Amino acid sequence: MMDGVDIIDGDARAELKAMAQRARTACHALGLATSDARRDGLHQGAGVIRARMDDIAQANASDMAYGAEKNLSPAMMDRLLLTQDRIEAMAAGVEAVADLPDPVGQVLQSWDRPNGLQIDRVRTPLGVIGVIYESRPNVTADAGALCVKAGNAVILRGGSESFHSAGVIADCLRQGLAAADLPQDAVQIAQSRDRAFVGAMLGASGLIDVIIPRGGRNLIERVMADARVPVFAHLEGLVHLYIHANADLDKAIALAVNGKMRRTGICGATETLLIDRAIAPTLLPRLTEALTKAGCALRGDAEAIALMPVIVPATEEDWSTEYLDAILSIRVVDGLDAAMAHIAQYGSDHTDCIVTEDTEAAERFLREVDSAIVMHNASTQFADGGEFGMGAEIGISTGRMHARGPVGAEQLTSFKYQVRGTGQVRP
Amino acid sequence: MMDGVDIIDGDARAELKAMAQRARTACHALGLATSDARRDGLHQGAGVIRARMDDIAQANASDMAYGAEKNLSPAMMDRLLLTQDRIEAMAAGVEAVADLPDPVGQVLQSWDRPNGLQIDRVRTPLGVIGVIYESRPNVTADAGALCVKAGNAVILRGGSESFHSAGVIADCLRQGLAAADLPQDAVQIAQSRDRAFVGAMLGASGLIDVIIPRGGRNLIERVMADARVPVFAHLEGLVHLYIHANADLDKAIALAVNGKMRRTGICGATETLLIDRAIAPTLLPRLTEALTKAGCALRGDAEAIALMPVIVPATEEDWSTEYLDAILSIRVVDGLDAAMAHIAQYGSDHTDCIVTEDTEAAERFLREVDSAIVMHNASTQFADGGEFGMGAEIGISTGRMHARGPVGAEQLTSFKYQVRGTGQVRP
Repeated sequence: MMDGVDIIDGDARAELKAMAQRARTACHALGLATSDARRDGLHQGAGVIRARMDDIAQANASDMAYGAEKNLSPAMMDRLLLTQDRIEAMAAGVEAVADLPDPVGQVLQSWDRPNGLQIDRVRTPLGVIGVIYESRPNVTADAGALCVKAGNAVILRGGSESFHSAGVIADCLRQGLAAADLPQDAVQIAQSRDRAFVGAMLGASGLIDVIIPRGGRNLIERVMADARVPVFAHLEGLVHLYIHANADLDKAIALAVNGKMRRTGICGATETLLIDRAIAPTLLPRLTEALTKAGCALRGDAEAIALMPVIVPATEEDWSTEYLDAILSIRVVDGLDAAMAHIAQYGSDHTDCIVTEDTEAAERFLREVDSAIVMHNASTQFADGGEFGMGAEIGISTGRMHARGPVGAEQLTSFKYQVRGTGQVRP
Repeated sequence: MMDGVDIIDGDARAELKAMAQRARTACHALGLATSDARRDGLHQGAGVIRARMDDIAQANASDMAYGAEKNLSPAMMDRLLLTQDRIEAMAAGVEAVADLPDPVGQVLQSWDRPNGLQIDRVRTPLGVIGVIYESRPNVTADAGALCVKAGNAVILRGGSESFHSAGVIADCLRQGLAAADLPQDAVQIAQSRDRAFVGAMLGASGLIDVIIPRGGRNLIERVMADARVPVFAHLEGLVHLYIHANADLDKAIALAVNGKMRRTGICGATETLLIDRAIAPTLLPRLTEALTKAGCALRGDAEAIALMPVIVPATEEDWSTEYLDAILSIRVVDGLDAAMAHIAQYGSDHTDCIVTEDTEAAERFLREVDSAIVMHNASTQFADGGEFGMGAEIGISTGRMHARGPVGAEQLTSFKYQVRGTGQVRP
């Protein structure tokens, strides 16, 4: 592995191009390999991660020293740190992905034509996937394994802080592939910290099939603005919980507290509570108590404050703020239509939920709210590939194309049509 | 309708933005309307096309005059021309799309989680679709109807030659929508011939969800190079027919003649024939006779020429030429692997076919050739949405994302997850 040398743009483009060509060849071979071989390659990779725990720890120590030099915040340093437990968890994660059902070759649909042609729509690998991420080195293993599971090649570009750790982890996955007689170049990682490489990835139309950015809003926005390649991006989770007039109040309180406070920093965390006017006087006191007790700061509109003066005024900006923190904005709304209008205006089409015992209202909400995930009587924190039963996710897409919502192995595939005939010619 | 005025770039962007915002509102309402209402709206539109046949013919006369002034080729003038029969066919086409199964609301997948959550993946409209096309004014009706069928709004930008005809046709569809109490702005068409409008569409990231170019290679390439919005494009159909050693020779000849000659100008037309060395001496004389009799010019490699001196030499360029004409290139190959290697090198991942009675060889070909459509013992001319049973298609996508192969109403949708719970909180 080279250390962080400065190379010019053209070099980054040439490097990326060479990597992408190797990746294309590798993904072709990987896609044609058996399910067992791909599973085995990932299991072998997990084994190498465990066997090379000391190498990983040593590389991570270099990264931590670099991070300290750069005065990274304690939170950033914690993200960067790989303890023995975390390395073990990473290996176990690769194994879990290895054991997922194999999407490649799955028949999605099958039908016959009146002329006797038989048509199958069959899953195929997507191709070459670029993953651009930030400081957490374990993304290398998670993202790498998920791409390989679906028969894809991946080009990884981690954060400059995690440069050494990520390099060794990628190398472990490559060794695993080789041990299973699969092409190592199905997993490749940028060989320098040069930022021009990111630009080369974003411009690699025809070389990279899709780019998945993982990280903070700045990274995502830059990728979305500059990419000439399709992007699966998770932009924002401005998640609403609407408590309908016919809600069960105990349920509503439990869902609000869990939706907001279980973990405040994840994209499925509730950010805005919409309370039906009809039940606000009964519900709001109990809700305020429960949320305050759980450590949540409350901001609300005039009507909420009139009922519970402990709530501080929300500004217009609050309705479009993804706090990712123990803060909740509360608005009293005049029924289902007003709630859906608020969501249409301020939401980010990520996840929105209705709490109600009224099935008709629930079904209208599920049908009419145009978000990737719409829920009825469930915590918004379930907005997660693992919780959906996908086994693992590389992120949640807020786009509408190809992948929407949790992006697991299935979403990292394309498909083709297989047509079987007996000599039919077209009239 | 304004006539072809020159407006500056900023104006085009502003005009597009205003149209796209109206389109967004319209597609929201259209997606929530009932299946019956969408079907009715299209039937009404077909009725208006018939009722306004004279208006359409008159507008078309203006376009034909403009075309004559611009010295369009006879072929172009023919594409532009709308006879009474063609207008009737257009109306019938809109009705056929109206009567397709409605993809919106279709449950794609359904599963339960151990905690009792029920998850459905349900089709939703894709959103706002931009269609950029060339001289054939009937694309206005085809594309408009297919977009509306799937609950989308469409922004149309036809060729400058068909400006008047396309405008009236779009207006008919709008009247039909209004008659069914649906938002007219689900169908909008550029109100000037200004080319800057195309640029505005290509840059309309966040306003338009996907762009579909319909036309010649220049248009497609320009759209693919400049679009900041996802594109469903059909770039090239470099279609191969591989005749395996164990092919039934009669079948092979019939498939070659039909695949090449039924219509030479469509994307599913066979362009290159790969003949297994083992059967070349037997097959090639008969094949040459049949193809020559059908009016096809043959170009071949040295081995083919050695067997049939009437074949003229193919150059390296021939293997990557989509003739769209009564010309076929022929290469003798050494078995299945050599055939697949040729296809991997020269193919365009569109449609490729094997002719064989050997099931194992067929299954390997179907599995290993990475094209949108892979066929066994069938004419490559079946590569068509209608022939696939999709009812209508807006084109065939050679991309790997979201839509691949024929793009019908289903491919013009996105999806969302509906999660039904009973108060589950996430541990």
